[in-house]
Amino acid sequence: MDFQLALEAVAQRIEPRRGEGRVADYIPALANVPARNFGLAVLGCEGESASICDADTVFSIQSISKVFTLCLLMKNVSEEAIWERVWREPSGTPFNSMVQLESNSGVPRNPFVNAGALVVTDMLISEFGRDGAVNEILSFMQALCGVDCVSIDAVVAASELATAHRNAGLAHMITSFGNLKNSVEDVLHVYCNQCALALSVRSLARAGLFLAKNGLDTRRDVQVVPAPVVRRINALMLTCGHYDAAGDFAFRVGLPGKSGVGGGILAIVPGKASIAVWSPGLNEYGNSLVGTLALEAFVDETGLEML
Amino acid sequence: MDFQLALEAVAQRIEPRRGEGRVADYIPALANVPARNFGLAVLGCEGESASICDADTVFSIQSISKVFTLCLLMKNVSEEAIWERVWREPSGTPFNSMVQLESNSGVPRNPFVNAGALVVTDMLISEFGRDGAVNEILSFMQALCGVDCVSIDAVVAASELATAHRNAGLAHMITSFGNLKNSVEDVLHVYCNQCALALSVRSLARAGLFLAKNGLDTRRDVQVVPAPVVRRINALMLTCGHYDAAGDFAFRVGLPGKSGVGGGILAIVPGKASIAVWSPGLNEYGNSLVGTLALEAFVDETGLEML
Amino acid sequence: MDFQLALEAVAQRIEPRRGEGRVADYIPALANVPARNFGLAVLGCEGESASICDADTVFSIQSISKVFTLCLLMKNVSEEAIWERVWREPSGTPFNSMVQLESNSGVPRNPFVNAGALVVTDMLISEFGRDGAVNEILSFMQALCGVDCVSIDAVVAASELATAHRNAGLAHMITSFGNLKNSVEDVLHVYCNQCALALSVRSLARAGLFLAKNGLDTRRDVQVVPAPVVRRINALMLTCGHYDAAGDFAFRVGLPGKSGVGGGILAIVPGKASIAVWSPGLNEYGNSLVGTLALEAFVDETGLEML
Amino acid sequence: MDFQLALEAVAQRIEPRRGEGRVADYIPALANVPARNFGLAVLGCEGESASICDADTVFSIQSISKVFTLCLLMKNVSEEAIWERVWREPSGTPFNSMVQLESNSGVPRNPFVNAGALVVTDMLISEFGRDGAVNEILSFMQALCGVDCVSIDAVVAASELATAHRNAGLAHMITSFGNLKNSVEDVLHVYCNQCALALSVRSLARAGLFLAKNGLDTRRDVQVVPAPVVRRINALMLTCGHYDAAGDFAFRVGLPGKSGVGGGILAIVPGKASIAVWSPGLNEYGNSLVGTLALEAFVDETGLEML
Repeated sequence: MDFQLALEAVAQRIEPRRGEGRVADYIPALANVPARNFGLAVLGCEGESASICDADTVFSIQSISKVFTLCLLMKNVSEEAIWERVWREPSGTPFNSMVQLESNSGVPRNPFVNAGALVVTDMLISEFGRDGAVNEILSFMQALCGVDCVSIDAVVAASELATAHRNAGLAHMITSFGNLKNSVEDVLHVYCNQCALALSVRSLARAGLFLAKNGLDTRRDVQVVPAPVVRRINALMLTCGHYDAAGDFAFRVGLPGKSGVGGGILAIVPGKASIAVWSPGLNEYGNSLVGTLALEAFVDETGLEML
Repeated sequence: MDFQLALEAVAQRIEPRRGEGRVADYIPALANVPARNFGLAVLGCEGESASICDADTVFSIQSISKVFTLCLLMKNVSEEAIWERVWREPSGTPFNSMVQLESNSGVPRNPFVNAGALVVTDMLISEFGRDGAVNEILSFMQALCGVDCVSIDAVVAASELATAHRNAGLAHMITSFGNLKNSVEDVLHVYCNQCALALSVRSLARAGLFLAKNGLDTRRDVQVVPAPVVRRINALMLTCGHYDAAGDFAFRVGLPGKSGVGGGILAIVPGKASIAVWSPGLNEYGNSLVGTLALEAFVDETGLEML
Repeated sequence: MDFQLALEAVAQRIEPRRGEGRVADYIPALANVPARNFGLAVLGCEGESASICDADTVFSIQSISKVFTLCLLMKNVSEEAIWERVWREPSGTPFNSMVQLESNSGVPRNPFVNAGALVVTDMLISEFGRDGAVNEILSFMQALCGVDCVSIDAVVAASELATAHRNAGLAHMITSFGNLKNSVEDVLHVYCNQCALALSVRSLARAGLFLAKNGLDTRRDVQVVPAPVVRRINALMLTCGHYDAAGDFAFRVGLPGKSGVGGGILAIVPGKASIAVWSPGLNEYGNSLVGTLALEAFVDETGLEML
Repeated sequence: MDFQLALEAVAQRIEPRRGEGRVADYIPALANVPARNFGLAVLGCEGESASICDADTVFSIQSISKVFTLCLLMKNVSEEAIWERVWREPSGTPFNSMVQLESNSGVPRNPFVNAGALVVTDMLISEFGRDGAVNEILSFMQALCGVDCVSIDAVVAASELATAHRNAGLAHMITSFGNLKNSVEDVLHVYCNQCALALSVRSLARAGLFLAKNGLDTRRDVQVVPAPVVRRINALMLTCGHYDAAGDFAFRVGLPGKSGVGGGILAIVPGKASIAVWSPGLNEYGNSLVGTLALEAFVDETGLEML
């Protein structure tokens, strides 16, 4: 299959929609990104690769980092220990994270809502310490896609921290139920740093490729996590990867995916390919509007569907 | 692959757990089914077939019928008309159907919760009339798995109707928002009949096979629904097929599936196989306890995973 | 105190606002009432009486009937039996009745939300039978304010029944939890009849006077209910008498009161007076807009405050 | 009326129940208070006074302070400014504070739930500064009941602050909606200090007496707040003074009241008396179990009812 031709067709199809959606504006570093930006990259399991448009512009991956911190945690901590502190169910409504924290005694619905990601981060801090956790996360990403391809944007991290009242609210609430073991300050510090990871779609597709290959990183010939763990992470992306629009994304794209408020989406075709797309305008659910369209078009052009 | 050997291994693995779970007891016809019953059948896309234990005992498929009524509706009504009356998102909590009906002005979260299935049934009545809808549903099932292989259990249907206060509550509520067009009585009549469809797992696997084959029923050489519709139905089964345990089922089994309170589950391996399992004891979420274990074991034995 | 002078002052103060608010339009019999209608009547505990404007026009008291059916029930059934089937707490939000029915296993928050009133009606049917309950309610009202002063508007009752989907939803839901003992049809029949009670404000003030006099009906020299029961009913009116605006009404008027969607409000000054007001335009909470203003003005003019 | 005789009768009636209930144990300073402690004091509007048992033991008034901080705010800030930042409705369920914050965009349900009291405190800080607010609150209390009769328990305040994760969660959440103007740290500092106000029931009854006298402090001959403000505060105590048990308290006691987790309750008989009771064992709703019984008995003994 000629991925490059497919990407060109995709780019043509989404061209009239470029610039649509609402760019996240709660911190200046995100608000200033031009809405027309668009990058798309794909890596096939047989070594194929292709990319188009702003494929080498780095952007803030934000919540997509939750996939990687969960991987890192599952490499280091037993599943029993993890799943007694966070559930694995879709959250239902955009408001539910806080609501469900109360009714579920501080146990978040899944690791991909903010509340759940805070618990994952807390467990990483318990393993590695505050600064150690940041370093481990960065090293993990660098090992996956190349040392020079990923960094933490300090300006973004600082801005996030300064405006993190909603996440601070969640963290204090979880703490009140005894489900955070480290200080709220430390958890927010690490969390805001992981959200500030900056990559291009080319690097992000590379970082996610092991999820399409049963956990194998063929570039380094390393089994990142066991195959069953990969299947579970893909399952979580399918059911919980797009907040309150997980059903809609599955319905339209039909692939495991994880979006971030920076406008990025990582999607996996198990056994076939890793795809990363970026376009900063968001739809009403907080997911990249043009990015989602591009993934729909990509599946349509390539037949790389899973369902 | 030798499916029969795999099923034997699965049967051996779940043997110690047979009889576990709580059999649905809200109507006598369900309550009297022995908890140790267990049937498993698989049909491969290349024509392979295998079954084990009570594979020819008919049982009440209950909510699994929602997959087929949605198919039937998507064959006959435009998607625009459907998706403005029901959403496609997981419902979040076991209580949410009623709660979300209120906050969403009578538009159910998805077609696989009771509220959503009532709207689907209502649309079928608008197409075919009350008795016509029952006939169409039955004919659709018979066409898929054989005229003699499926019937409507009149005793079950009558018992369901007599105790349908919760569903009547939902239907009146939806009507109060203008989202049912036919009378509550007619909608409940058709709905209770579809829930009372009685099949064996062997027939159910046959009925679902087109969902593994991009919509093609190779036995009759008929395209049941277009391939994109199948992908969407599979996506809905993945995110919404197990009520409030959709995430857990995806995490553990990793396949599109739909369960019924009678203890049945239909699972699809796209491009590879259709699997039906039945065991009446339910877990805390209302899904077959041993059935879910059997599907986990089946994926493990065969490697027929999707993610 | 010269009540008539006070009412004239009140009428003058609210004159510029007459006609404001939105008249209930879910049934024609209510929708056709002119928005400018306004009646106000007061009966003092010392025998004083006064009224103004449309004080002799009969109107549909709707939910105000819930006060009287609760009284009638408390005359006939032990409090233990009542309060295990309905709570005594404000419901919190306009949506909560249905929501809380689910989370409270079919036990309504209080007897003045629709769900709770349905349970009260159900208990009356268990005491008196279906037709007997309607008769008892009507007789109770006639005894309080005069045989010729109160009737059931059959057109309103029939219209209510025909559009009672929301209440039917509640009733089926409560039945599914076992908290209605009679058929949904019977409960809705009696409920819609009690809502259709038609009185003037002059008669309504008379009917409520015993609530200001520790339970004594001095006209007949009858103790309607014991004094402690009256105090409890007044307490319920204070905390639960205005749906989701109970707090606002207490804040602004400071008296026990009960409103109906027909635009009526009954308010009690314990030990001093019974006041009835009617004006069909409703505020955003479903309570009479001008009626509430008139009660505020009345308290201000007379100093007949309680707090 | 002989208040002393009434109190003796009350003490005798509650004697068999002393020690019942669960003493708050989230901070040591509260956990160590003996459960059998019980104090009761009443001040009549005609100058009568009586007290019994541990009437001179100081205790932590906790949430009762919310009545006084609201008074202080209403003395200093326009009502318009206050009621656009906090509502006046009962909250409905124990969980709702957080839930409703989300659905109401950071505007708390009423000033007597924690979320609402934090907003009140924030407004006091905007008026007086952080340390100024603490001083104003203390001075206000001292003016009401005597300089030597009230202090802030520094140990309690520090303990509260150290465990204030739930309140910190609320404060950050409100801040995320822009409804706190000062730092979360400052708001929690002042809030934990006001909760740590330590008084005896004799002093507390004195402090609350102006609420029974239309705002007049006859000891100093000062109008603390205008009469309409007093009526509104009494109305808020009636509908919102006992968290999710406001309806039950109104039903059983029938008086405006405010409870605190330290086991105190202040109750007002408008025009007649101010009553303070203290007993640290709490009922399931977090209100003093024996204190509530004592108030019921007091109303029964004296006939000092309002409804």
